[in-house]
Amino acid sequence: MSEMGITVKKSENFSEWYTQVVLKSGLADYAPIKGCMIFREHSYAIWEKIQEIFNKKIKEKGHKNVYFPMFIPESFLKKEAEHFEGFVPEVAWVTTGGNSKLEERLAVRPTSETIMYVTYAKWIRSWRDLPIKLNQWCNIVRWETSATRLFLRTREFLWQEGHTAHATEEEADTEVMEILNIYRDLMENYLAIPVLAGKKTEKEKFAGALYTTALEALMPDGKVLQMGTSHNLGQNFAKVFDIKFIGEDEEEHYVWQTSWGISTRMIGGLVMVHGDDKGLVLPPKITPVQAVIIPIPYKNVDTESIMRKANEIFEKLQKNGISVVLDDRAEYTPGWKFNEWELKGVPIRIEIGPRDVKEKQVTLARRDTSERLVVKEEKTVDTVTKLLEEIQNTLFNKAKKFLEDHTTTVKTFDEFKEALKKKGGFIRACWCSSPTCEEKIKEETGATIRLLPFEKEKLFSNCVCCGGEGKEVVYFGRAY
Amino acid sequence: MSEMGITVKKSENFSEWYTQVVLKSGLADYAPIKGCMIFREHSYAIWEKIQEIFNKKIKEKGHKNVYFPMFIPESFLKKEAEHFEGFVPEVAWVTTGGNSKLEERLAVRPTSETIMYVTYAKWIRSWRDLPIKLNQWCNIVRWETSATRLFLRTREFLWQEGHTAHATEEEADTEVMEILNIYRDLMENYLAIPVLAGKKTEKEKFAGALYTTALEALMPDGKVLQMGTSHNLGQNFAKVFDIKFIGEDEEEHYVWQTSWGISTRMIGGLVMVHGDDKGLVLPPKITPVQAVIIPIPYKNVDTESIMRKANEIFEKLQKNGISVVLDDRAEYTPGWKFNEWELKGVPIRIEIGPRDVKEKQVTLARRDTSERLVVKEEKTVDTVTKLLEEIQNTLFNKAKKFLEDHTTTVKTFDEFKEALKKKGGFIRACWCSSPTCEEKIKEETGATIRLLPFEKEKLFSNCVCCGGEGKEVVYFGRAY
Repeated sequence: MSEMGITVKKSENFSEWYTQVVLKSGLADYAPIKGCMIFREHSYAIWEKIQEIFNKKIKEKGHKNVYFPMFIPESFLKKEAEHFEGFVPEVAWVTTGGNSKLEERLAVRPTSETIMYVTYAKWIRSWRDLPIKLNQWCNIVRWETSATRLFLRTREFLWQEGHTAHATEEEADTEVMEILNIYRDLMENYLAIPVLAGKKTEKEKFAGALYTTALEALMPDGKVLQMGTSHNLGQNFAKVFDIKFIGEDEEEHYVWQTSWGISTRMIGGLVMVHGDDKGLVLPPKITPVQAVIIPIPYKNVDTESIMRKANEIFEKLQKNGISVVLDDRAEYTPGWKFNEWELKGVPIRIEIGPRDVKEKQVTLARRDTSERLVVKEEKTVDTVTKLLEEIQNTLFNKAKKFLEDHTTTVKTFDEFKEALKKKGGFIRACWCSSPTCEEKIKEETGATIRLLPFEKEKLFSNCVCCGGEGKEVVYFGRAY
Repeated sequence: MSEMGITVKKSENFSEWYTQVVLKSGLADYAPIKGCMIFREHSYAIWEKIQEIFNKKIKEKGHKNVYFPMFIPESFLKKEAEHFEGFVPEVAWVTTGGNSKLEERLAVRPTSETIMYVTYAKWIRSWRDLPIKLNQWCNIVRWETSATRLFLRTREFLWQEGHTAHATEEEADTEVMEILNIYRDLMENYLAIPVLAGKKTEKEKFAGALYTTALEALMPDGKVLQMGTSHNLGQNFAKVFDIKFIGEDEEEHYVWQTSWGISTRMIGGLVMVHGDDKGLVLPPKITPVQAVIIPIPYKNVDTESIMRKANEIFEKLQKNGISVVLDDRAEYTPGWKFNEWELKGVPIRIEIGPRDVKEKQVTLARRDTSERLVVKEEKTVDTVTKLLEEIQNTLFNKAKKFLEDHTTTVKTFDEFKEALKKKGGFIRACWCSSPTCEEKIKEETGATIRLLPFEKEKLFSNCVCCGGEGKEVVYFGRAY
């Protein structure tokens, strides 16, 4: 495996480094079909963790999981004009079933608003039927034409999409923020990725929404990754799909709706933010394996006692809820195993050699800092537990500091361009609120407005682009 | 809801009864696109239970979950001729991506052997890479043209498909049976559905397999439902996709492969086997809700003490690992709630009225037998726990007895036809092993050979069809 290690530095060729880490750590592989990828066991296990965490949180709040068909008749997609325009360039179409040409072609879902809301219209009659709070985990297809980037840009990916319907605008507003906060908790406290939260501009919002809220993270190359979105759809879809209910007032009303999603692209963010020149570095609260035990048998030394101790420690850790693997494969050397588990990003390695047995101790190695420490055997569980917490915090704080260090406040367009060129990251600037300036900045710099903060920040200059009156402080960035 | 109850008897119009139970219990709904269905929250929660149980069992045996692309180039499907012929009549084809016609049309996966094995060929180099034991949970499309039956026959459904590669034939044989046993455990001990196990004939085996093993259950209308299959693919796909490894002997070998699957159609089986004239009846080990607490407030009576006690019991049951719901909705009457939860098949109802509070007792009602019993409050957890076990066993035993009572041994073709007409079920008969007789029986009676028992049973007559020498005892039935 040593020749299989990462051959470029993260700081020197970020893009190539990323691809190598994803492929060599066993997270994913290119599929034998253009634009698609294979989620291998290592990334799928992370995805299962994300599902478990998120399912628990939304179910506590009364959401239920369901599954709707993946095929959407073209006529449904067309009903909401803005929505159709937004998605149609990237739709894959089924035109033939068996030996028959279909009368109407079917979209492979690029998102499920339309197929679900046709049904909501049928299900919802009275205020007693509200709220409806449904979620589904599924595959999504968007026929990208630009180059494939594993996890970040592929024609098929996995996500969850939540779709709720409420009696009032306030309830929909509350739902949007409740979900955004659950997302933020998942990203910051589990994935250890700090995010900025806010609203999207009219130009950047979801096609068909009243407004879109989002969470944006900063990658080490200075580019911004959108990690999740939560939309208030207002009554736009309700009017188009005729989703009405009889209220307690006995009048007919349109429902208020929200939709929200996070996808497997978060795993790409996880790789980029925490990985290093040796491979993946996974936060303890999201990794499928928190600790790996590697026995180190020496020639002419009592291997049996080493294996016995390795097994004892394995069982002790497992009993204490730590997700641990004992790598006792005979066909690989300890050195090969060290490299492989480092590549896979496992937070803690536990080495057990003859000396450890003799001294009743174990040797621990931290993946994030490469620090090694020797602890008394009876302290193993305590130390590992504490270390996992520490690693989780260290990773988050490091990423948080990077985000802060790469958020630059600028007053002029020259400062804007220079900051973007030199440091990348988030550019904090005042904006006149006109789409013309938004567009001009994008054309000249490639940066878009990532977020309007939820709480308006204090103005400190005129519009960074036109010099006209500044209306709000916003965050720009070049996005993935 | 009372007008929403089931309006036909299971014994009188089975097919209509089935559809009503599925729709009215909230398990599923027809989708607004032909041939497709919506898995609503109640059935999806059952599916999640099945996933949880099965994932635990296969992961313990070293299998890993992954996700492969849903699109399969036509040329891949064509590589294994038998496989292609078997699936091509039911394939949905994507021909357009965005605004461009694709150069090669893509199948929406009807099963994933081909796309996965192209990749296995790339991944497998040496004996150290074996075994590969992967599984995926995903959606599957088969463009059915016959009438839609919720859960049983829809154009899209959900399943898991396992795909393993091994160094030897023996390992593949062992894998096939290990999985079949896990399936059987899931079906009998969780779904409470007894099954017969055995091999398929050449005619009925999976397209491209060396042999197919299967589990078959008997439905109350006398028809047989295939619940799961586990195939030994031999080296057929390995030769076509060139999946070779260098063995410990330093020679090149083709791998031996297996594939296996269970799908959401099992939920259809669950409905049919256990349901009754009041709706669903769910086995305690697979139901999302094991017990529902319904407070029964009377006019002019102290409602607060009833609610307090309901909450206390709710917490006590939950703390003891029982999945319980407290239905405290004010907008519905207790009678309405009784009907709804019966329709949904929840095993135990717990009623708490003024008298129960006064006497420090609760009233329990069993869904399966409608039996009611009054128990002292402090015995609630114990009694519920014991009752759940009892209900689980009762349901299984009842279904088991039905299967046994509807398995008829016949010696002549007249007896065969009569038994099939009168009782349906499994027909046990001797067969000469010729495909001609197999085909003739199918044409004349609609019955197919469901299984060849793993252990040959003692012959008791000549071939039930041609009167020639009987070669083996097999089980026939009319299948869904």
